[in-house]
Amino acid sequence: MKTSNGVASSLLLRLDSRSSTPLHEQLFEGLRARILSGALAPGLRIPSSRQLATELDVARSTVLQALDALIAEGYLVARAGSCTRVAPELPLLAADVPRSGTRSPSTRLRASRGPRLADAARALKSTSSGAPRLGAAPRAFRPGVPALDLFPTARWARTVSRVHARASMGLFDGGDPSGHAPLREAIASHVSASRGVRCVPEQVFITAGTQQAFDEVLRLALNPGDSVWIEDPGYPGSHRAVLAAGGRPVPIPVDGEGLDVSAGLARAPRARVALVAPSHQYPLGVTLSLSRRMALLQWAERTRAWILEDDYDSEFRHRGRPLTALQGLDEAGCVVYVGTFSKSMFPGLRLGFLVAPPSLVDVFCAARAAAPSPASTLEQAALAAFLADGHFARHLRRMRAAYRERGEALLDALRADCSGVLVPRPCDTGMQLRASLAAPLSDLRVRDEAARRGVEVAALSDYFLGRRRESGLVFGFGGVRPDALREGTRILARALEAARRR
Amino acid sequence: MKTSNGVASSLLLRLDSRSSTPLHEQLFEGLRARILSGALAPGLRIPSSRQLATELDVARSTVLQALDALIAEGYLVARAGSCTRVAPELPLLAADVPRSGTRSPSTRLRASRGPRLADAARALKSTSSGAPRLGAAPRAFRPGVPALDLFPTARWARTVSRVHARASMGLFDGGDPSGHAPLREAIASHVSASRGVRCVPEQVFITAGTQQAFDEVLRLALNPGDSVWIEDPGYPGSHRAVLAAGGRPVPIPVDGEGLDVSAGLARAPRARVALVAPSHQYPLGVTLSLSRRMALLQWAERTRAWILEDDYDSEFRHRGRPLTALQGLDEAGCVVYVGTFSKSMFPGLRLGFLVAPPSLVDVFCAARAAAPSPASTLEQAALAAFLADGHFARHLRRMRAAYRERGEALLDALRADCSGVLVPRPCDTGMQLRASLAAPLSDLRVRDEAARRGVEVAALSDYFLGRRRESGLVFGFGGVRPDALREGTRILARALEAARRR
Repeated sequence: MKTSNGVASSLLLRLDSRSSTPLHEQLFEGLRARILSGALAPGLRIPSSRQLATELDVARSTVLQALDALIAEGYLVARAGSCTRVAPELPLLAADVPRSGTRSPSTRLRASRGPRLADAARALKSTSSGAPRLGAAPRAFRPGVPALDLFPTARWARTVSRVHARASMGLFDGGDPSGHAPLREAIASHVSASRGVRCVPEQVFITAGTQQAFDEVLRLALNPGDSVWIEDPGYPGSHRAVLAAGGRPVPIPVDGEGLDVSAGLARAPRARVALVAPSHQYPLGVTLSLSRRMALLQWAERTRAWILEDDYDSEFRHRGRPLTALQGLDEAGCVVYVGTFSKSMFPGLRLGFLVAPPSLVDVFCAARAAAPSPASTLEQAALAAFLADGHFARHLRRMRAAYRERGEALLDALRADCSGVLVPRPCDTGMQLRASLAAPLSDLRVRDEAARRGVEVAALSDYFLGRRRESGLVFGFGGVRPDALREGTRILARALEAARRR
Repeated sequence: MKTSNGVASSLLLRLDSRSSTPLHEQLFEGLRARILSGALAPGLRIPSSRQLATELDVARSTVLQALDALIAEGYLVARAGSCTRVAPELPLLAADVPRSGTRSPSTRLRASRGPRLADAARALKSTSSGAPRLGAAPRAFRPGVPALDLFPTARWARTVSRVHARASMGLFDGGDPSGHAPLREAIASHVSASRGVRCVPEQVFITAGTQQAFDEVLRLALNPGDSVWIEDPGYPGSHRAVLAAGGRPVPIPVDGEGLDVSAGLARAPRARVALVAPSHQYPLGVTLSLSRRMALLQWAERTRAWILEDDYDSEFRHRGRPLTALQGLDEAGCVVYVGTFSKSMFPGLRLGFLVAPPSLVDVFCAARAAAPSPASTLEQAALAAFLADGHFARHLRRMRAAYRERGEALLDALRADCSGVLVPRPCDTGMQLRASLAAPLSDLRVRDEAARRGVEVAALSDYFLGRRRESGLVFGFGGVRPDALREGTRILARALEAARRR
């Protein structure tokens, strides 16, 4: 093995042929660092490539490669028929330019305060320690986790493979900014039949999930500082989305009939948007009553406000026909219906959709005209095939039955292990269940005690923005097999006991 | 075939057993429409299910299914031991409730003005007719289109299939909000080696493309109304992103050395962000000079501003080593480096990444803590495998050679067909080429004349935000095979001739 540890006496450079970094890279980095540090002064003449190659004991092409790169980046200046020099007008950086091998972020920065954060981002940083760690593997009973154990992964893999194998070049290209046409058609059929949404495929716009849909609609609807009704308690993502879009979230109480529309009218009659989950409110699980639906629609029509209908899981009605979407009652074209495949397929698939009112189709098209495709075109095509082939409808049916079974099993387990302390409410839709605390216990403390023992439940208090009018626990049972439920509720019983003793 | 055209005399309902709509759905919709229209008055008593089944000649279970759904949605009220009635407190909708079969959006809405748009969205609507139609199939010489004909689609399909077939349940779950760990590692290695970016995998955050990355960074950096330097002429997406984030875009002229940093210092010294493409500016194709790089970094460190480095295509340096990213010179941790796989893989894959400075890693983590995965987890895993297996590096090498060949072929073709009118500039990076107009011609008119003839070129004038200091044409040659170039330049010659005559 030939080792060249040649030293360019004139430049004090040392190369190492045993390093995994190519020699020309070493030479480039070495010269660059010495120029930046001022060790090679502006205007200094550089030895010829031939001379350097000899001094360093490397091929001349290696030297030329490094010098060309330094010239291209402006560190060296070469004039035709003249020698190569260090660029004469270089503002110097700090003396201690790190070596290219330095990799630890903590050591490589000069003492610096870094760029300044926006006010909203500063708040983010200080509260980050308490934020839920969504990256961690889900445990019983984390809300929002679907029954991944029942997802037909092999069938999905086959569909994806087939779509990739047969894909036309058009699918590799950016595609339609509104979404893949066959998927829009399949979704229009599905939501018409199963959710009572009235739409044609042109009204369907593919999104990368619910948050992106909220964001898109709020940006079209809100001027800075405009008010938005959000449910209290409610889905934390709604609050975040309104803040991010520059709006002012106005928490409106939710009771047994859903969002209290009259409270909304009293608190913010001129709000531009109402963000609601009428079919199955989160976290309370209530349904917006018909008279409130009518009142909400009338308010929106009268004030030309938008209703953003978040229909995140009402497809999973355990028995009977799913409730009709609010969109199906909307005669004035005020409702934007938002759906997601995060629950009905799987969370790792970032695909959802919105259904725009007919009068706003042009606006959504215009907003997307200059944008890239909203989501992976090939995954959109795979999902379209999955829907068209009937696999999706079959999977939904299986999930409905499974959620009914798991919901009932959880009710039984809670009654068996936590009766007297917890009063669970029956649940006929979705994959969450709510329970009140009979004893005067802090739900936050119960949550913490359970977490310490490896069981994840959500505290109702955490979902309130205004006054905490209720306390209780929210259980996700979607991802928990019936046979694993019981262990969770037994641990929870111990957590309740511990919380009571404290 | 049994047909049941039974009429519920008491309710004037008619069902059609030959319809594809199930009978219980027909009954549900019929009753619902009559309740909403007031034909069935609030409080009205509904015949028993047995009686309705007889009148309509359908199974009693069909009637029960419809009535249960109407009760669940609040249209009917059933009291134990009593009859079922229309809900007593229903606010009525308009008299003309559309039938569920009505599908055309234009006919189904009442005359309505629809919800009110935000000011920014109103501007969008009025200008939408002139917006580029990104959905249409790309033609020669649309800028930004990579060489899809060279993409190894079969290899990608195999990688995707393998990843799906072997995927753990964790990949179907939401995954890490920062991105799939193996992909972050593969990207950190790649950009360190090929772009001179200095980072560890923890600094890499996966995005759904460049626009999402801009959006995320701008939201962390900007308070409403804060100024942002953007290049003039420049990438239109930068301007849009700043407006969408509530910032004030300040156009800074670009000359032969790239962004004029001193003009930025004069116009908006307190800007919070500079959004630049230092390695290969779009559309001018220039490189930010080393002295300006230093000046930009010094300004950012001094004022604690952010530099958003858009490195969209400089991997495709046709010859020699790609220029080092600005990020590699950043000692103060002010640069967020943004990369994309839209060009290096294909536009339909919505995957990109950003590299945060070490001091801001916590902030990005916190901002994403409560968010879902930024992009499809399975596609992230597939891309990670594609990089790890070396397919990506091989593809890049082939693309570099292809772009060199196509760029040279376009230069030759333009010299042959359009000499005297067009002065193309040599291009050593990427997949775009710029040409000046020698004659006093409007580049907009040339673009329109070419478009009429089926050839797509971009007019330099369209990229200016302030005064149009230059006119010319921008050609994308990435997606055009060398043998197809010549037809395009011949048509262009005729378009130039026509534009001259007008």
